[in-house]
Amino acid sequence: MTAETGRLRAAVMGAGSWGTAFAKVLIDAGTPATLWARREEHAAAINRAGCNATYLSEVKLPPELHATADPAEALAGADLVFIALPSQMLRTHLQRWIDDVPSGAMLVSLMKGIETGTAMRMSEVMAEVTGAGAERLGAVSGPNLAHEIAAEQPAATVVACTDEAAGLRLQAASANPYFRPYTNQDIVGCELGGAVKNIIAILVGIAEGMGFGDNTRASIITRGLAETTRLGLALGADPATFAGLAGLGDLIATCASPQSRNRTFGEQLGRGRNPHELLASLDQVVEGVATSRAVLDLARRTGVDMPIAEHVVRAVSGELEPAEVLRSLMSRSRKPERPAG
Amino acid sequence: MTAETGRLRAAVMGAGSWGTAFAKVLIDAGTPATLWARREEHAAAINRAGCNATYLSEVKLPPELHATADPAEALAGADLVFIALPSQMLRTHLQRWIDDVPSGAMLVSLMKGIETGTAMRMSEVMAEVTGAGAERLGAVSGPNLAHEIAAEQPAATVVACTDEAAGLRLQAASANPYFRPYTNQDIVGCELGGAVKNIIAILVGIAEGMGFGDNTRASIITRGLAETTRLGLALGADPATFAGLAGLGDLIATCASPQSRNRTFGEQLGRGRNPHELLASLDQVVEGVATSRAVLDLARRTGVDMPIAEHVVRAVSGELEPAEVLRSLMSRSRKPERPAG
Repeated sequence: MTAETGRLRAAVMGAGSWGTAFAKVLIDAGTPATLWARREEHAAAINRAGCNATYLSEVKLPPELHATADPAEALAGADLVFIALPSQMLRTHLQRWIDDVPSGAMLVSLMKGIETGTAMRMSEVMAEVTGAGAERLGAVSGPNLAHEIAAEQPAATVVACTDEAAGLRLQAASANPYFRPYTNQDIVGCELGGAVKNIIAILVGIAEGMGFGDNTRASIITRGLAETTRLGLALGADPATFAGLAGLGDLIATCASPQSRNRTFGEQLGRGRNPHELLASLDQVVEGVATSRAVLDLARRTGVDMPIAEHVVRAVSGELEPAEVLRSLMSRSRKPERPAG
Repeated sequence: MTAETGRLRAAVMGAGSWGTAFAKVLIDAGTPATLWARREEHAAAINRAGCNATYLSEVKLPPELHATADPAEALAGADLVFIALPSQMLRTHLQRWIDDVPSGAMLVSLMKGIETGTAMRMSEVMAEVTGAGAERLGAVSGPNLAHEIAAEQPAATVVACTDEAAGLRLQAASANPYFRPYTNQDIVGCELGGAVKNIIAILVGIAEGMGFGDNTRASIITRGLAETTRLGLALGADPATFAGLAGLGDLIATCASPQSRNRTFGEQLGRGRNPHELLASLDQVVEGVATSRAVLDLARRTGVDMPIAEHVVRAVSGELEPAEVLRSLMSRSRKPERPAG
C-alpha cells in the first residue's frame, strides 16, 4: 500500500495485449501498477516508447506505467498481483517468483485456461504453488477484448473472489469510467466460463471458415454454453454465472471478434488448413487447444457429456475433418431442448 | 390431413421473408404447405416466378409450394396454421379468417412481438380471438435468420407448446436435414425471448452506430438477457428457456446480423438519424419499436426493473439522444453481478 495515499499497489505479470491493457485500466482507476515483461528488451521498449509496440501498438500507455523484466522489482510492495501469462506457463513462473510475492498479497488470474495433466483452474494452481487461501485468490473475467478496452470503449466485467470483502477491494482497484467491474463470489464458474469459451470459439471459427452464417454460430454458442453450464454444475459452480458476463458475455465477445486467436485458428481449420502445420506456424498461444484436452479430461472425470469440447479435441488433433465435425454434431438424435430428469 | 399419406397439411399465413422460408422448411420436411400472401399480385408473382422476389429473391422455392391471396383457400384442410404477420396486425387478420380456420387446427406463431395496449403475447391473442385451448397453440422461435434458412444452412430452433404430444407433432412436421427443432413446453418463455430480443437488438444497433465494438455489444446482450429472464420469471416462464435457443440463441443471431431490421434501425439512430423521420421512411415493420412500449408496460405491471427496455423506449421516442442512452446505462451504481435477495 502506498504510504501517501492509502491506495493499493498492483503488479501485472505478463506484458501481452491483455496484461498491458489491464495495467492501463488499473492506472486509470487510480491504482499504481508496474508491468512485468518476460523479455528485458520488451520491457525497455515499452518504457522507451510509452507503448507496447508488439502486442498493443495503437495505444499510448499512461506515463505513470513502468515496465520491468525483473520479477522482484515488479512484485516489491504489491498488494495485488495480477497474472496474465499463457495458462500452461503459470506454474513454472509462479514457482520462480514465489519468494518475491509479498506475503498477504492477493493473486488474481487474468488467464483463461485449464492446466493440462492436472486439469486445474488457474486459481487452483496458484493455491497449490503458493499456499494462498481463498481470500487471497481472485480472477477477472468478462467480455474484455484487450484492444477495445485499451481504446477506452465502455465494457463490463466480473471480479471474482470467494471472499466478499476482497472482491470489493478488487472492484474498487479496477473500476474507472470505461471499465465497470461487477463482483461475483463464484470463482469456479468464472474461471470455467473463460476457459471453455476458448474451445467453443474454435468451433465457431471452424463453422465460419466453412462458410456458415449467423444461425449456425448462434446455435453453437447456445449449445456450447449449455455444456459449459453442465460442467460447472458438476464442479459446484453457480449456474447463473454462465448466463452472466464471465459466461455468456465473454463467449459472445470472443466468438464475434476477429481479434480472437481461438476463433481465427478455428477459421483456418474450417478453410482446410492442417492443424499441426497451422499451430507450428503461429507465434502466439492458442489457449483453446491445450485447454480443450484439459476440459475433456475434467468432463470425463465428472461424467458430464460435452460434445462440443469432444469434437474440438478431435478436430484439433486432425482426427476429424471440419465437415465431419459439423455433420456429426448436427445429426445427433432429435430431442427436447432440456431432457427431463 | 392428406388422405394418401396420413401427413399433416399446413397453411403459412404471411409471405414475408420468414413466412416464405418457413413454407420451404415444411415442404422440405415432407409437410404439404400453402402460402397466403396479403396482396393478390404478390401471390401471383410467387406462383409465376417460383420465388419471392420481394422478400427472399435469392432462393428458388420448391415447385410444390402454391401461394394464394385467398385466406379460405390457404386454410382449407389445414391441420397446422402458421402465422407470420407483423405482430400488431395479428388480431385484425385473425378476426377476419376466423370462420375459415378448420376446427381443431393448431395455431402456431412465427411472430416475435407483444401487442400494444393489451400487452399480450401472440398466442394469447390467438387464444382470445379463436377460443383455442393450450393444446392448439404453439410458437416457433430460435436463431432463425430467414435468408440463411432458405439457403439451407444448418440451424436449430425451438417448437413450443404446453402440450407435449402437440409439440412432438410440430417437431415432426418441420424437421428436415438443415432445420433441427427441439421441443419445449414453456411457450411463455419462448414468446417473451423472441419479443424482447428485438428491443435489445435496437440498443446493440445504437451502440454500433456510435462506433462501439464487440465488448459493448456482448455486455448489452448479457445484461439484456438478464432483464428478459427477470421478466420471464415474473410471468411464470422457465428461466432455462432464456439460456436456450429461443432466448440466447435468437438474441445472438439477431444482434450479429446485418439482416436484422431492429439492429439496423438502431444503428441508424446511433449515427444520429431522427427516429420519427427514420420510421416514416421505412417500408417494413421494425417489431421492436411497438414491442418496446408493450414490454415496458408488462414490466411495470409486474414490478420488474428493465433498464434496457426503458432506455430503448426513450431513444425511440426521441426523448434521449443515443450518447445519453449509453452514458445513463453505464453510470448506474457499482454492484454485484447478481444482487442478493
